Amino acid sequence: MVNIEGYTGGAAKTLVEAGANVGDKIRLSVEGRVVVGRLMPRVGSSSDILTIKLDNGYNIGVKSSKCKIEAVYPGSPSEHTSVRGETQKAGLIRGDGYVSLVSTGGTIASRVEYETGAVKPALSASELIQMVPELDEYARVRTRVLMSILSENMRPALWSEIAHAVYEEVGGGSDGVVVATGTDTMGYTAAALSFALKGVGVPIVLVGAQRSSDRPSSDAYTNLVNAVSFAKSGAARGVFVCMHSGVSDGESMVIEGVRVRKLHTSMRSAFQPVNAAPYAFVSGKSISYVHPPGTRGVDELDFKPNFSEDVSLIYFYPGVTPRKIRSMTEGSKGVVIGGTGLGHVASDLTDTLSELIRSGCHVFMTSQCLWGRVNMNVYTTGRRLLEVGVVPLEDMLMETAYVKLSWAVANFEWEKVPSVMRSNLVGEISERSVLTTQVHRSEGWT
Amino acid sequence: MVNIEGYTGGAAKTLVEAGANVGDKIRLSVEGRVVVGRLMPRVGSSSDILTIKLDNGYNIGVKSSKCKIEAVYPGSPSEHTSVRGETQKAGLIRGDGYVSLVSTGGTIASRVEYETGAVKPALSASELIQMVPELDEYARVRTRVLMSILSENMRPALWSEIAHAVYEEVGGGSDGVVVATGTDTMGYTAAALSFALKGVGVPIVLVGAQRSSDRPSSDAYTNLVNAVSFAKSGAARGVFVCMHSGVSDGESMVIEGVRVRKLHTSMRSAFQPVNAAPYAFVSGKSISYVHPPGTRGVDELDFKPNFSEDVSLIYFYPGVTPRKIRSMTEGSKGVVIGGTGLGHVASDLTDTLSELIRSGCHVFMTSQCLWGRVNMNVYTTGRRLLEVGVVPLEDMLMETAYVKLSWAVANFEWEKVPSVMRSNLVGEISERSVLTTQVHRSEGWT
Repeated sequence: MVNIEGYTGGAAKTLVEAGANVGDKIRLSVEGRVVVGRLMPRVGSSSDILTIKLDNGYNIGVKSSKCKIEAVYPGSPSEHTSVRGETQKAGLIRGDGYVSLVSTGGTIASRVEYETGAVKPALSASELIQMVPELDEYARVRTRVLMSILSENMRPALWSEIAHAVYEEVGGGSDGVVVATGTDTMGYTAAALSFALKGVGVPIVLVGAQRSSDRPSSDAYTNLVNAVSFAKSGAARGVFVCMHSGVSDGESMVIEGVRVRKLHTSMRSAFQPVNAAPYAFVSGKSISYVHPPGTRGVDELDFKPNFSEDVSLIYFYPGVTPRKIRSMTEGSKGVVIGGTGLGHVASDLTDTLSELIRSGCHVFMTSQCLWGRVNMNVYTTGRRLLEVGVVPLEDMLMETAYVKLSWAVANFEWEKVPSVMRSNLVGEISERSVLTTQVHRSEGWT
Repeated sequence: MVNIEGYTGGAAKTLVEAGANVGDKIRLSVEGRVVVGRLMPRVGSSSDILTIKLDNGYNIGVKSSKCKIEAVYPGSPSEHTSVRGETQKAGLIRGDGYVSLVSTGGTIASRVEYETGAVKPALSASELIQMVPELDEYARVRTRVLMSILSENMRPALWSEIAHAVYEEVGGGSDGVVVATGTDTMGYTAAALSFALKGVGVPIVLVGAQRSSDRPSSDAYTNLVNAVSFAKSGAARGVFVCMHSGVSDGESMVIEGVRVRKLHTSMRSAFQPVNAAPYAFVSGKSISYVHPPGTRGVDELDFKPNFSEDVSLIYFYPGVTPRKIRSMTEGSKGVVIGGTGLGHVASDLTDTLSELIRSGCHVFMTSQCLWGRVNMNVYTTGRRLLEVGVVPLEDMLMETAYVKLSWAVANFEWEKVPSVMRSNLVGEISERSVLTTQVHRSEGWT
């Protein structure tokens, strides 16, 4: 059976006859209309549909039986291949270095099954690049498929696997590393890499899409181009998320990995910084920094890729009982609480937390308010929690605190965990005196 | 011992000699300086300090031994009394009706212990009114002290108690009811009253303060005046939260009780609407409605004040195990999950949830993103959860869903709970087609 990068049947026959291949620009006449665009990898299982990416970024599907390929303009010769766990240079443009694209799955690497309307992870990193041939203009990109999972299935052991892969890419000489991942738990993964790769000397940029790559409204294209552009720039050090800014169609916002949270289920601008300003805005080759990158520290890379699953996150709510807290935390070496307001839980839980601490479990407090700082000295409730040994974590995001605890328990001696948690390692805690005038705006979320 | 509304010792002696009482405007000379202001109820345990509220809203403390009361301008004759569980008319101004102020505790009814710097709930509803004598201009206010707790100790059984008290006030002829409560769990309580008092014909307004009433930067004064103003207006029906808008010093934002969330630990503008526009803005007697109040339904009051504690809220995170979910939900009649993104959890939890459902527990899905709507048809993970019987709750806030479940389990037959949960009863679910252009802005939260 003829199979041209996934095309079979009538579609493959049409391509063979025209001498066209995926990545080529082609001109088609479709029932009298002329369409010019780039041939994309096969989408769905229909054997008669060609997928064409138009210059405006939209994809269309064209029945091969109803069109005629009039001209073919070959794309750049591509060496992209997707070999599990193996990296290859693309060599598309000359430069001092290259950007590594590590794919873990998620919507950005997904396509719609047109039969069911559902989205499934299906694209390899190299297919991703083929869908966005414009990346040629930004960097030599080498690709690596590490895993292919939806990010709700991400877990501490997999953060460790991703950290190892990124570490290898950095060691291999990349100017920057782009990690394509699902958006559901992207904030957690960004925090995990921030701690595992503390002091990394190049930008590590997590990128994803809220809408799959083959949908017209997809943000995959913009986010990927901007992430590669930011990674290639090499001006920033550390771990970031690069997602749609919500301001203009082609703009992405770069946010520090320990300060980012998904705050909308479906909007492209779902990712917002919490208790921090955005780090930069990227629109193709134009990068504007909110914080000048020169102000970041220049530590040595301190690679600590382990994460423990013996920790728990407890979200307090009115009516939660001591029994539930005890059973949820059984066997945990550490617990992060998402308390109310300045860092509180109901008074009838104080004894439970005290017992937990005396049994050898570290207990930390964050706030489910998300924004702001815990302060357990203001009210009696907070002071009693401090007295029994609950440790407040300043303005650290609840989710970041959970990830950090998973990391601290796995990489440090038990006694050192509280001081590690209370130290600002990669920007996860800000000093009280630091105030910025940057405005957080979430337009149109009603 | 002489005791003038809490003042004792030298302070009481000074007041007796001058013929001054709490609520009076007095002119003092303090070491050569002249101070004019209203005498406030006693703050702290010192027997020599008078608390004076200046015209600019700030409170100062003056040593009675170092000042001389030069003139007394009596305040309005007050009939406020604080009798537990009993309501009394104030009769301060003439009007068609009155506003009830039900106090449950919290920062708005707290004062700083100057000895320790900590904040403790201490003010009764009538003391609150005495601290804000300007309320005379807005409504006849009758007061009722229901409980005095910090709101982290609020729980389903207490929601029921508050619902009963509000029901009695409405039945007693109030134009509106203001409920003073702590901010930590104010959103949960607002949702609880929204369901318990479905169809209520007058405004029920929850109000609190981020900073205690006797602090210069307190928002207690503004919020209380605006809450009473909004409650007295009688134009709106239903349950609302009225807290500082963050825009100008004297302005509060009114938000629907099922759409409100505390989103900052310390800022006065911590309360924001989620998946909804603000309902109104209030600045003294000026009320501007975002939604014209006429558009609300005019149901009969359907009083269902019961809440069950046999329900659980599960906040998903990467690494949470089936064992933890099982132990946390043991014995629950219903569970609300705060999933990731469009409504997901890790695939290895699907079987656990399936078992839970088959054992007779209802399981509902919301998103920890807060903003946006769950949609479990897009990804395989979501569709599998639907298949095992997890019920998606559209754009309902996670916390509102938990409160509603606690209410639904207590007031409806077990079989009816899922359809009750999926029905929009008081604005907690919006239709997909409803879009507003109102902009959510959270200025300066960085």
